[in-house]
Amino acid sequence: MTQFASLADLRAACRDLPAGDAAAAAAALAHDAILTKPAGSLGRLEEVVAWLARWQGRTPPRLDRIEVLVFAGNHGVTAQGVSAYPSAVTAQMVANFAAGGAAINQLAGVAGAHLRVQPLALDEPTADFTAAPAMSEAEFLAAVATGYDAVAPDADLVCLGEMGIGNTTAASALAAALYGGGATRWAGRGTGVDDAGLRRKQSAIDRALACHAKCLADPLACAATFGGRELAAILGAALAARRHGVPVLLDGFVSTAAAAPLAKLAPGALDHALAAHVSAEAGHRMLLAELGLRPLLDLGMRLGEGSGAAVAALVLRAALACHTGMATFAQAGVAEKASE
Amino acid sequence: MTQFASLADLRAACRDLPAGDAAAAAAALAHDAILTKPAGSLGRLEEVVAWLARWQGRTPPRLDRIEVLVFAGNHGVTAQGVSAYPSAVTAQMVANFAAGGAAINQLAGVAGAHLRVQPLALDEPTADFTAAPAMSEAEFLAAVATGYDAVAPDADLVCLGEMGIGNTTAASALAAALYGGGATRWAGRGTGVDDAGLRRKQSAIDRALACHAKCLADPLACAATFGGRELAAILGAALAARRHGVPVLLDGFVSTAAAAPLAKLAPGALDHALAAHVSAEAGHRMLLAELGLRPLLDLGMRLGEGSGAAVAALVLRAALACHTGMATFAQAGVAEKASE
Repeated sequence: MTQFASLADLRAACRDLPAGDAAAAAAALAHDAILTKPAGSLGRLEEVVAWLARWQGRTPPRLDRIEVLVFAGNHGVTAQGVSAYPSAVTAQMVANFAAGGAAINQLAGVAGAHLRVQPLALDEPTADFTAAPAMSEAEFLAAVATGYDAVAPDADLVCLGEMGIGNTTAASALAAALYGGGATRWAGRGTGVDDAGLRRKQSAIDRALACHAKCLADPLACAATFGGRELAAILGAALAARRHGVPVLLDGFVSTAAAAPLAKLAPGALDHALAAHVSAEAGHRMLLAELGLRPLLDLGMRLGEGSGAAVAALVLRAALACHTGMATFAQAGVAEKASE
Repeated sequence: MTQFASLADLRAACRDLPAGDAAAAAAALAHDAILTKPAGSLGRLEEVVAWLARWQGRTPPRLDRIEVLVFAGNHGVTAQGVSAYPSAVTAQMVANFAAGGAAINQLAGVAGAHLRVQPLALDEPTADFTAAPAMSEAEFLAAVATGYDAVAPDADLVCLGEMGIGNTTAASALAAALYGGGATRWAGRGTGVDDAGLRRKQSAIDRALACHAKCLADPLACAATFGGRELAAILGAALAARRHGVPVLLDGFVSTAAAAPLAKLAPGALDHALAAHVSAEAGHRMLLAELGLRPLLDLGMRLGEGSGAAVAALVLRAALACHTGMATFAQAGVAEKASE
């Protein structure tokens, strides 16, 4: 089992990350160029295959084993009236995942992905971060380690999702801590909070930012202070995936905010992660822009659970099927582009 | 076998189209509202299920039988040097489709769709429309009828694609004829023509528009004059699908331009058609805006063959799986949104 002894220890684990296999990516693109289609005409389908090749370190890449990891946590900040749903829904939805009744169950099924749900101490919500850091350093590091160990080193792709009533408040606060701009820049309606709830959410975030101003320069301290256990686990999983050569599909606003401290620590630390989609949650588009991530899909989804990532996994399957199944110009006897 | 005796006869067949089943769509949305997710949080996935329900006339809709129809044709305007590939490639690609080596073979396979390719008189290219109408009225109507009869009335969804060297020139000319703006507004690089080729393409389109100015007020005459057999077949297929209650996924620029005369004849005539994606071909985004169609995907694809539609069919499968497979709040024992 992975253990991080301190924030400094985790910070060290985020250094000297594998750079990816540029030769594998180049080989994938070279193969695409001889397939029976105009060069580049599959657009992002070609890009994502090269990206898979780079981070899996092989050409052709594989998608035999796609894992959807959903981490769940509870949040003390719900005491501030920031969510449209009660905290009890987190555990109820975890039971729904187990019973196969949630959206992600259906989407993982269509995508041929294995779904694994990991609840993190749902009976012990994080502290209300308007008054104290959400997690102690030890709690944060334990959640990061749980996420780290959840990634199977031989997976071909991991989709990172979450469930946690109140966690768009945590994600908004974390994004504001990392990138500035305060609550009005980052807070949206989450699962559907009303106007009064949105004002409470913004107020909670801005009070927390003022309360914890000292930690803002340290991305990992921000993750412990404003985040949540499921966000910490996503950070750990994204880090493990990089070390193990497993490409990552980030889901929505919460998943992206959870992984963002890695990029803040080291530019390029999320190069092995693709933004599956841009959600309808207000801050997500802005956060992707800050991270330089270009979302694959824009379907107005705002559910979490890894749902957008599972839909994007279908696009990756389509892309890989073209890459591995198409005939070359020579095989098919199709004339290549005339030189004019 | 369907026959249209004249343009007037076809025009009459485009009137009094079925309006879709609003009750089925409403029932689909009502079911979505009790599923274990925040209301509306699946975004366009919920929209497309309601759209399927409306045009199939049942709730829940089905996707047991998805058909990808690819029509192929050759174009006399290639004599003007408008394409990067020789016309012989059309037949070579039809052979590639038959052998299973093209992108659409792989994509239809992933989407669980049945692929049917229909070449239309490849040995008899349409006339070079810079000098004469591309098709006679009889040729045009025969191609429309072929497309009309290609739609299985019991299909659950039809994806309309095409193959035809030179057909982005035809599509650009047709779009310009219908919506104005001339070649510079509509012509792009197609399969990858160079700068000189693009200038030849634009020149051919503008000369054709001047030559056939008399027909511009008649959308069906425009389709016969500037289009091609595969475009005419797509128009016929889109019309048949509407009459048979089969929702349509339009593919890229050429497919969309091919169906556009229907919308020009009767607003709402393409309400049963969804724009699968917006392609990288310059005119497509503009044409979708003219038609009021909001594309589902934006993946920089520009291949044709129904490839974008097949990828979008995956999204529809994901959407339907959620709609039919998810538990309700009551079934799962999940608390509904708190009234605040």
